[in-house]
Amino acid sequence: MKTRLTRLPKPTLARGKSFADAIRLRKTTREIAAMPLSPPVLSSALFAARGVNRARGPFGARGLTAGSASNSQEIDVYVLLARGAYRYDAAAHALALVAKEDLRLLAYTPGQPLISPRAPVQLVFVVDLDALEHTRGFEEPGLHDPEVQKSYYFVDTGLVAENVYLFAAAHGLACWFHNCDKRALAKKLRLRKSQRALFAQTLGYAR
Amino acid sequence: MKTRLTRLPKPTLARGKSFADAIRLRKTTREIAAMPLSPPVLSSALFAARGVNRARGPFGARGLTAGSASNSQEIDVYVLLARGAYRYDAAAHALALVAKEDLRLLAYTPGQPLISPRAPVQLVFVVDLDALEHTRGFEEPGLHDPEVQKSYYFVDTGLVAENVYLFAAAHGLACWFHNCDKRALAKKLRLRKSQRALFAQTLGYAR
Repeated sequence: MKTRLTRLPKPTLARGKSFADAIRLRKTTREIAAMPLSPPVLSSALFAARGVNRARGPFGARGLTAGSASNSQEIDVYVLLARGAYRYDAAAHALALVAKEDLRLLAYTPGQPLISPRAPVQLVFVVDLDALEHTRGFEEPGLHDPEVQKSYYFVDTGLVAENVYLFAAAHGLACWFHNCDKRALAKKLRLRKSQRALFAQTLGYAR
Repeated sequence: MKTRLTRLPKPTLARGKSFADAIRLRKTTREIAAMPLSPPVLSSALFAARGVNRARGPFGARGLTAGSASNSQEIDVYVLLARGAYRYDAAAHALALVAKEDLRLLAYTPGQPLISPRAPVQLVFVVDLDALEHTRGFEEPGLHDPEVQKSYYFVDTGLVAENVYLFAAAHGLACWFHNCDKRALAKKLRLRKSQRALFAQTLGYAR
């Protein structure tokens, strides 16, 4: 099966604030408007989240803006928009089509109040355990221990999510990290057996 | 017992680079020199990590530069320096003395190669499960489920650690997130039954 790739425009991070201001303004905002993000803003948010920021990172693999255990790069970011669901392909800086469906509501846990159901972007954090099991990086026993794996992939999710929080603060956006409907997302995003949906992050403009 | 508090100087984050540059320069550097951080640089690093950036955050509690599940603020940062070990007190922006001992080598897992044993600062991430169990924030069943707690406190560790990574990138420092000697740290940092040492992050200047 050929994956349909949509290239993202060049990130335009330089228009953002200083790191100092991003840190001072960092916060969670749950009330997010329906106004969509422009393609350059979405592109910049994904680059900040876990884009390739150098050709040679640890252990010879590409380096990302967010680190990972032994540079396994086991956390993928899926992007739920009104027009469909995509996997962010960092190497190509592109969106790979996963489903031509609006899956944004699955970014909420069943039963959770739908505080911002019309927010334009839901990022979903998905781990691929195979990436830890078959790391190109430093091989250590923990990478094959399910308990240690958990500690790694949840920390690595936080590393990505904080990039998004600070991007939002630096660019006048609002964001909110929260639980998601793991089971429904696994099905609708057609995740492999080695993949798990972990958490979601709503991104947009404050209401 | 009275805790000895050492006030930190005012953070001087404004001297750092833009958020865009911090994202572009973000990386792990394992080879870190012995040169100490000046008090303002250490102060700024800790403020960036999980300082109080607003008096009223979610659920009426102070807001930190790194979010946490229901704003429980369950992750503490301990600071291991040559002169002693401290807990970072965000509310007072001060260091609370924990041990008058150089515990920096305990930031390495037993058996791990000591790549930068003389690095000036080891941050240790410590969770307090009581903070999740008795949150001032939104009360939800997950906060009392050990598996869900794990997912929260490891993600929340990542949120803090990425602030440190980006601070390092914005200020020309080097840093490295890694495993630590959890058992020895629990003892030497005199952690309570509800606390666990999780991970460490070495901070300093590149060798």
